[in-house]
Amino acid sequence: MLYLVRMDVNLPANLPEDQATAIKEKEKAYSQGLQRDGRWPHLWRVVGQYANYSVFDVESNDELQELLQNLPLFPYMDIEVTALAKHPSSIS
Amino acid sequence: MLYLVRMDVNLPANLPEDQATAIKEKEKAYSQGLQRDGRWPHLWRVVGQYANYSVFDVESNDELQELLQNLPLFPYMDIEVTALAKHPSSIS
Amino acid sequence: MLYLVRMDVNLPANLPEDQATAIKEKEKAYSQGLQRDGRWPHLWRVVGQYANYSVFDVESNDELQELLQNLPLFPYMDIEVTALAKHPSSIS
Amino acid sequence: MLYLVRMDVNLPANLPEDQATAIKEKEKAYSQGLQRDGRWPHLWRVVGQYANYSVFDVESNDELQELLQNLPLFPYMDIEVTALAKHPSSIS
Amino acid sequence: MLYLVRMDVNLPANLPEDQATAIKEKEKAYSQGLQRDGRWPHLWRVVGQYANYSVFDVESNDELQELLQNLPLFPYMDIEVTALAKHPSSIS
Amino acid sequence: MLYLVRMDVNLPANLPEDQATAIKEKEKAYSQGLQRDGRWPHLWRVVGQYANYSVFDVESNDELQELLQNLPLFPYMDIEVTALAKHPSSIS
Amino acid sequence: MLYLVRMDVNLPANLPEDQATAIKEKEKAYSQGLQRDGRWPHLWRVVGQYANYSVFDVESNDELQELLQNLPLFPYMDIEVTALAKHPSSIS
Amino acid sequence: MLYLVRMDVNLPANLPEDQATAIKEKEKAYSQGLQRDGRWPHLWRVVGQYANYSVFDVESNDELQELLQNLPLFPYMDIEVTALAKHPSSIS
Amino acid sequence: MLYLVRMDVNLPANLPEDQATAIKEKEKAYSQGLQRDGRWPHLWRVVGQYANYSVFDVESNDELQELLQNLPLFPYMDIEVTALAKHPSSIS
Amino acid sequence: MLYLVRMDVNLPANLPEDQATAIKEKEKAYSQGLQRDGRWPHLWRVVGQYANYSVFDVESNDELQELLQNLPLFPYMDIEVTALAKHPSSIS
Repeated sequence: MLYLVRMDVNLPANLPEDQATAIKEKEKAYSQGLQRDGRWPHLWRVVGQYANYSVFDVESNDELQELLQNLPLFPYMDIEVTALAKHPSSIS
Repeated sequence: MLYLVRMDVNLPANLPEDQATAIKEKEKAYSQGLQRDGRWPHLWRVVGQYANYSVFDVESNDELQELLQNLPLFPYMDIEVTALAKHPSSIS
Repeated sequence: MLYLVRMDVNLPANLPEDQATAIKEKEKAYSQGLQRDGRWPHLWRVVGQYANYSVFDVESNDELQELLQNLPLFPYMDIEVTALAKHPSSIS
Repeated sequence: MLYLVRMDVNLPANLPEDQATAIKEKEKAYSQGLQRDGRWPHLWRVVGQYANYSVFDVESNDELQELLQNLPLFPYMDIEVTALAKHPSSIS
Repeated sequence: MLYLVRMDVNLPANLPEDQATAIKEKEKAYSQGLQRDGRWPHLWRVVGQYANYSVFDVESNDELQELLQNLPLFPYMDIEVTALAKHPSSIS
Repeated sequence: MLYLVRMDVNLPANLPEDQATAIKEKEKAYSQGLQRDGRWPHLWRVVGQYANYSVFDVESNDELQELLQNLPLFPYMDIEVTALAKHPSSIS
Repeated sequence: MLYLVRMDVNLPANLPEDQATAIKEKEKAYSQGLQRDGRWPHLWRVVGQYANYSVFDVESNDELQELLQNLPLFPYMDIEVTALAKHPSSIS
Repeated sequence: MLYLVRMDVNLPANLPEDQATAIKEKEKAYSQGLQRDGRWPHLWRVVGQYANYSVFDVESNDELQELLQNLPLFPYMDIEVTALAKHPSSIS
Repeated sequence: MLYLVRMDVNLPANLPEDQATAIKEKEKAYSQGLQRDGRWPHLWRVVGQYANYSVFDVESNDELQELLQNLPLFPYMDIEVTALAKHPSSIS
Repeated sequence: MLYLVRMDVNLPANLPEDQATAIKEKEKAYSQGLQRDGRWPHLWRVVGQYANYSVFDVESNDELQELLQNLPLFPYMDIEVTALAKHPSSIS
């Protein structure tokens, strides 16, 4: 089941550099794990913004909530979730 | 080069049924042609709305403009285009 | 799996009275059928507006899309869907 | 009498961890007390956000105000209240 | 129990003059009846707009819904309802 | 002459408790003085928010500006002023 | 007493040309009358829009309401009123 | 003197095809005249929308107003004007 | 050439009192200088807000930019500029 | 390929003066380099705001992302990107 998720990251200006770097590395590893196991099939950068559009493929709302709230950057994110369904014209 | 495109369709209430059906069939054929040749890799229905999120893969802004303005439903659409770039954490 | 759905109905001013009444009756029958089979557990009127907040309990995004697009009033509705998950403090 | 209430929680980034944990525990206990006595019949997590949609069942606006302003997390919340009424198609 | 209600009236441009006048007269009589019986204690014109702010004093959300949906101008109105409670500094 | 005034209070999270209490007491005394002399005839709490809707009855825009800017909580407020006039259907 | 008033004019596309011209002439005469008697001291065109910013100098909210609702173009206008007061730095 | 101008075109659905074509041809000729004489140095299509961003180079606000209100498509346009100044980092 | 300029002032809560007073005095002197030389003909307080509407009369966009960016309070302001032109009905 | 980019700069109030000056100088040098090599053909100041409208001429979304994220002021910017295409009436 697919969801389009927009994530806008707002790191506080006074967050020490090393902490920011550490969180970003954790975020990268966490995200790449989910990409490899197929639950995070698409991850794109929004040009010009510290934001991404992602597509998640999970079994339920609750599973998506679990994945998102465990994002290391979650406390610094504004997240918008759009439930997607199969489009009648889609050939995939 | 990728773009996320949101299309909201607003067919006028007084558009005759047969005309609406004809345009939708043209739209479907047009979209499936582009899906097959790889320029429209993703097309998802936004749950609950006569709207879709799509991803286009084209060579330039001008090519995207060409594809969008020739959508049979274009005159009845509100379209939002977001330029996408490769995300540093993306494994694809 | 739960979704909060807000539906705002905008019937065109020039829709003949009898047609409007007929669609509303179909809508009522359709909705009460889904309420009885448990997929539409909550339906509340937003005070002062021709709008409702509903909760749907379905197996997937696609099933919700199916139910919503078949609402007799769907062509006259603005619909917003919010995916819900279990709240960690909820006792139900 | 029913109200739909949306609560968005914005804890300040510099709130010490232990204080945040303490307030959340108080909030959980407070909310579960009201859920048990029937005045807070529904509490759902908005997927992807530190926010919830709740339904309150109380006798008056003033009672709802009392319950909300005494939420331990109240100072850190943006709250939206929508008055609900019985829907003519509702079977409950 | 008090509610602040904003009503914006949008009469269609092509509504015949006599019909518009008839509805407005019904609206005036309906509103003055509720003002006299105390359920519509305040009715003010928003300067420069075909809109009013009103205060209703009723027993429940459902009663307010009943009063509002029976406004003769209801089909042509955008209505916003704000639930009010006693202010701790109010001397009335 | 009447004005509807909405006041949203945003006290900074790091304002010492005693200072906040002192300002609130001054605000209460200031407001009750104006309520008693008739220039602040209505003061209602917006349910669920640290906000109020008030009605002021003053001689001029300048007098209203004077009263509002001297509110002890003024520096922490977002204020919206709506000029009101007598409604043609009002019986008061 | 001063008010800043923004007026956006939206004439329906299907309003016959001669009617539109007649209303605009009435509007011009009405406005120039008020300009001459000092109650409409400023009238400026918003560049690029069928809109104006005006300043009115009247005795009360009710008088402003009277002047605005009698604008020949009133039924086709969106109007925003901002109450103005003397600025502490103003030398006029 | 430079202005950025965004123009969104909304032709009514029921405007006869030939009339629409005629206006668009007039618009093209009018715009190309101003482009040639240097007052309309930039005209770009917003990808996916019946809208453009333009830059005008004129002597005054009044001259810009003159040019814009005489656009054949003006009655069907939403226009936003942003006054531009020389940027301290600009090398042109 | 006229521009309507709205200025909303947001002084940081932790700005020392004496600094705030000093900047405001500089702002007053700066503004009164421009008022006297005719480039700032109107300055009005928005009732209830730490904001003003002003009219500037300058030769160009660049001159307006120069005047605005040198406002002592500029770093603490949100500013909106609207280019104004002569209204066809204006008698001044 | 052209993009219109709006950049709003929000430097934190507590950023030391010398740091702010250093970043601005880096920004100026960085921008002028791109202007000279033709990838940043237009840079205009939005009158009254610490913001600019720019036009970038690059080969791809990814190249634009690269240029923007390396702006020294990037961490303090809100950026909006609009993909542009050739306008059918444009003579350039």
